[in-house]
Amino acid sequence: MTAATDAVSGKWRTAAREVTLPVQLKLLQETGRYEAFNLKPIDYYKTPYTVWPVPDWLFWESDVAKWIEGVCYFLHEQPDAELRKHVDYLVDLIESAQQADGYLNIHFVVNEPDKRWSNLRDLHELYNGGHLIEAALAHQKLTGSDQFIKVMLRFVEYCASVFGPESQGKKPGYPGHPEIELALLRLYDRTGDKTSYELAHFFLTERGRDGGKYYVDEQAARGEHPQLAPGMMPKKGSYWYMQAHALIKDQQHVEGHSVRAGYLLTAVADLVDMQRDAPTRETGDLLAALYRLWNSMVTEKMYVTGGVGSVKQWEGFSIPHSLPQATDEGGCYAETCAAIAVVMVSERMLAMKLDSKVADVAERALFNASVTAGMSVDGRSFTYENQLASSEADPCERHTWFQCACCPPNVLRTLGILGGFFWSQPPGGSIDDVAIHHFFDGTIRAGSTEVQLATRYPWEGKVSIDVQGPGKVLIRIPGWANKDYTLQPAAVGPPQGGYVQLSRGRNVLDLPMRPRLAFSHPHTTQATVSLVRGPLVYCLEDEDNKWERDHFKNLCIPADVDLSAVREEQGADGVTYLILPKAGHHLRPPRAATAQPPGVVEGETYTQDFIGMNDVASIGEYEEEVRDLTFVPYYYRANRRTKGVQMRTCFRVKT
Amino acid sequence: MTAATDAVSGKWRTAAREVTLPVQLKLLQETGRYEAFNLKPIDYYKTPYTVWPVPDWLFWESDVAKWIEGVCYFLHEQPDAELRKHVDYLVDLIESAQQADGYLNIHFVVNEPDKRWSNLRDLHELYNGGHLIEAALAHQKLTGSDQFIKVMLRFVEYCASVFGPESQGKKPGYPGHPEIELALLRLYDRTGDKTSYELAHFFLTERGRDGGKYYVDEQAARGEHPQLAPGMMPKKGSYWYMQAHALIKDQQHVEGHSVRAGYLLTAVADLVDMQRDAPTRETGDLLAALYRLWNSMVTEKMYVTGGVGSVKQWEGFSIPHSLPQATDEGGCYAETCAAIAVVMVSERMLAMKLDSKVADVAERALFNASVTAGMSVDGRSFTYENQLASSEADPCERHTWFQCACCPPNVLRTLGILGGFFWSQPPGGSIDDVAIHHFFDGTIRAGSTEVQLATRYPWEGKVSIDVQGPGKVLIRIPGWANKDYTLQPAAVGPPQGGYVQLSRGRNVLDLPMRPRLAFSHPHTTQATVSLVRGPLVYCLEDEDNKWERDHFKNLCIPADVDLSAVREEQGADGVTYLILPKAGHHLRPPRAATAQPPGVVEGETYTQDFIGMNDVASIGEYEEEVRDLTFVPYYYRANRRTKGVQMRTCFRVKT
Repeated sequence: MTAATDAVSGKWRTAAREVTLPVQLKLLQETGRYEAFNLKPIDYYKTPYTVWPVPDWLFWESDVAKWIEGVCYFLHEQPDAELRKHVDYLVDLIESAQQADGYLNIHFVVNEPDKRWSNLRDLHELYNGGHLIEAALAHQKLTGSDQFIKVMLRFVEYCASVFGPESQGKKPGYPGHPEIELALLRLYDRTGDKTSYELAHFFLTERGRDGGKYYVDEQAARGEHPQLAPGMMPKKGSYWYMQAHALIKDQQHVEGHSVRAGYLLTAVADLVDMQRDAPTRETGDLLAALYRLWNSMVTEKMYVTGGVGSVKQWEGFSIPHSLPQATDEGGCYAETCAAIAVVMVSERMLAMKLDSKVADVAERALFNASVTAGMSVDGRSFTYENQLASSEADPCERHTWFQCACCPPNVLRTLGILGGFFWSQPPGGSIDDVAIHHFFDGTIRAGSTEVQLATRYPWEGKVSIDVQGPGKVLIRIPGWANKDYTLQPAAVGPPQGGYVQLSRGRNVLDLPMRPRLAFSHPHTTQATVSLVRGPLVYCLEDEDNKWERDHFKNLCIPADVDLSAVREEQGADGVTYLILPKAGHHLRPPRAATAQPPGVVEGETYTQDFIGMNDVASIGEYEEEVRDLTFVPYYYRANRRTKGVQMRTCFRVKT
Repeated sequence: MTAATDAVSGKWRTAAREVTLPVQLKLLQETGRYEAFNLKPIDYYKTPYTVWPVPDWLFWESDVAKWIEGVCYFLHEQPDAELRKHVDYLVDLIESAQQADGYLNIHFVVNEPDKRWSNLRDLHELYNGGHLIEAALAHQKLTGSDQFIKVMLRFVEYCASVFGPESQGKKPGYPGHPEIELALLRLYDRTGDKTSYELAHFFLTERGRDGGKYYVDEQAARGEHPQLAPGMMPKKGSYWYMQAHALIKDQQHVEGHSVRAGYLLTAVADLVDMQRDAPTRETGDLLAALYRLWNSMVTEKMYVTGGVGSVKQWEGFSIPHSLPQATDEGGCYAETCAAIAVVMVSERMLAMKLDSKVADVAERALFNASVTAGMSVDGRSFTYENQLASSEADPCERHTWFQCACCPPNVLRTLGILGGFFWSQPPGGSIDDVAIHHFFDGTIRAGSTEVQLATRYPWEGKVSIDVQGPGKVLIRIPGWANKDYTLQPAAVGPPQGGYVQLSRGRNVLDLPMRPRLAFSHPHTTQATVSLVRGPLVYCLEDEDNKWERDHFKNLCIPADVDLSAVREEQGADGVTYLILPKAGHHLRPPRAATAQPPGVVEGETYTQDFIGMNDVASIGEYEEEVRDLTFVPYYYRANRRTKGVQMRTCFRVKT
């Protein structure tokens, strides 16, 4: 564990520890989650489901588990007796909730004891189990006690008696929402428990067999009409929603629910890495699929922020290059949890092979789409969706909690282990070696090597790195630096995979922090430009640009805007604002001429302004104003509450 | 009826008469439709449904009806004994299929006699009845015989005994697919049958009550799970799919399936027009709704071609301004039948009030999205969807028939009465008065007035109009002419609603036929430009631009392209081609750098080419080629079969 932070996430980790932990604890208590492992029926369990067939309280285990996981990470750095009491209480309660055979679930035990495992597709028994395993791992790390781990090993043993090859008389099923796979592999890694490995291996190699036939069969076994589809699935039989339309090794593009896809790929990466000492045909097939699907995600289906999943209906991926920026433009979901999953899978890939492209993606998601973007500076409010532009129906705002509360505690636990994503042992290296993926302020101890980093990154591009000890220390040169950086003293040898080797003693890396423009990929069919500085994508809010009324929908920026005129300004919360004088061209299209019913007097000029078409005649009638623009980092949006409900990140290029 | 045609549709009407009529007759025979009214069970009725719960043969009545309707119109102009024999045979067969109580339907009588009217939402008994009524009207016009009309009046009488206010002990239902409403109002107009009027009135004022509660109730009555939704509906309970989410008078935006919406609005226009002598509050409410929904369709949800309905999943409207151009860009349905419905509703609106904006829309749909766009020059093949750009998965092509065969015979019957859309009696005028909406070659006789038109429109802009007789003759000045036209002699008095009054004797109207550019509306978030000439939208096909490989996805055209350099060329089939020298900038984006699994050697340069973002570094790496471009009218696409599978209509503006 590394307590180290950069100049942005440091603030967030402090807020998480001081504010989010107690605030979320209170929310767990107030909503009934805290006591739910006591397995008592409550009135809330009688309320109708918001999305059939999923009870509104179905994920309660995971909410509690993520909070426990997060609090354990933070307590590891800094003890707190009061919080620790709650952890102990909850772990005791969870232990008491385990059934004699090892089963562990609130909803089914309390409300539908005869329906256990009847619907793996929609009901999250295994997903919840996965998060409980991850909580148990953090709990063991903090306390040294095996209490929680033992509960979860019993649960795994029980699951392994239920699920497995049909030839062994078991159910050949796999979870509708992947999560337990990566948790099982982490559990195996920690404990050496073979059953955990084998169960994960079964889930990952069985998933999608015959196009998701297991789900078809279990639906029939429930006696449901074959045309009946759960409310969250795009269509009956669209098992690509949960990446079960084909065996993982045969999947060609990343599809469906983006959090599920990200968790699944993370587990695939773990599995492949564990098999690499004795690789088989399966190892190669899964490795190829992992990279194929990651590339599909990154090159075809990722927003400029590193966010993924543009479709709200299934919280997931659209067709390649379909990346609308706001719900009034056709969607933009970019769930906070999905960006966390991008960081997770990228971490696993870097453990197998150093590739700065992979770390660049992780950095983009870290700074613009996950933890800092998803939580407010004060640690009190969160985003579930990270749209790139607001609209009247969907203002730019944050919330303290959500009915389906996956994101807030996910941000918390990710902040808890954030430092763990910043560096790793390079693949094939010794325990003294270090690969630094992200730039931060703090110390790395690896074997006998110690690396001291000091920087105000991402506000400044200078990173000083003091290397002591025997190890080889590599550091990533970000792709966005476009080779325009300096390193003193010069790197040892040529770069490998975008990483350079540092010298022993003091090194100074200087990255170019001049703002730059990012243009939309032409196959998105959009023609937009964004302002970027270092790893940070910037946006406009009406908080700073008070003249705005239309969510910056009609604001254009010339492709050749003069970036040398940009002024940097120290804003609130330590944030660097960027001011572009006279760069914004407000071009309001003429109002469309409408037909008026007989009897109504027509008040408008006829501008022949059809959608999809403006005849030349109307072009001259655009209303134009030129504006100074004040940008703030995208992650920082919706943090100041005097105005700030209108926001946009990518702007029409002035043509 | 007017046999008159313009220089484009004339070819199509000839092909329809000479080729389409016999070819579709043969298809009706080969597919089993021709004999289906004999009510004998056939093996085909045992095949599983493609889209649950709709039997694949459910619309057979309407296919036969539309063919009868079309053939009757054509036989009216030019008798054909052989075709007439088939009409007589079919009408006899239909008459024989009517049940004792007046019911008339193939599927339910043969396959599910006890399920009659059990599912108005999904099963098209009333829709089919509507098309049979329209066929009967054409049959009576041709033959003078009441045989078919009487069958349909019996059917209506029976339906009126089943459907009506609950207080009268009737079912308060209305058809899932509107059509019968407009047919009933036409039947009333022809026969004065009050029952027809009242039934249409009931359907139109009951539709959408309590958000479509009738459909919820009938689903419950069928004993179906409340979460079960038919395969073609976007989601359970999304009754906006069939415009039943609210009473028509309360609907704010045009929504759902576009053909249903168009047919429904046509009936609303008819109803309102019939009520206008004694208007009530209802008249005013429906009139306001009609114009509100038409404006929503035209200003927010219409393609440059006049096509409507961008979403394939529900064959209908998306959110405002969401108009992708190809399936690989997120959709583009623009069903042929939907554009025909646009023409129909516009015709009804022009009958109430002259407004050239309305006729402009009709003209755009007529020339670019319905009859000529939907049928090949030779009358043998058709389009169902009219996408604005092709893709690898969806090449630009035509088909002879479709399993759901609504479009081909719809084009046929619309071509049959095409002249009827070209002019009408102006609202409030005498029977001697004439309003000319579209420019054609032929004669209008109205009362004692005779108007002789001669033109090569739309290839040439000159229209000569000889006016004889007592009537006032008005002619539309298209909005696209942008006031840049000449009329000799000058118009009588000022224009009204975009129409000018002609003098008695010879008038010459000269419209500007210089090609012009049309830009996408900025709120589509696209930045595209199209080439337009007169009413015709042009496109590129790889037939003429053989260097193309990417469906013109990477072709840009500068916003200030020099249109004075355009060369017109006489192409095949009488079509004017347009050639723009050196206007096309082929800008291929650099290939995205991908991550490669360990063990695989990386062959590509790192270009930092994320989706949603190209950092400046990669901009210079676009591969650029400049090309001459040869355009053909959009309607003419997929008519030459040597190549021509790649096509695009709107091109990225070069930024």
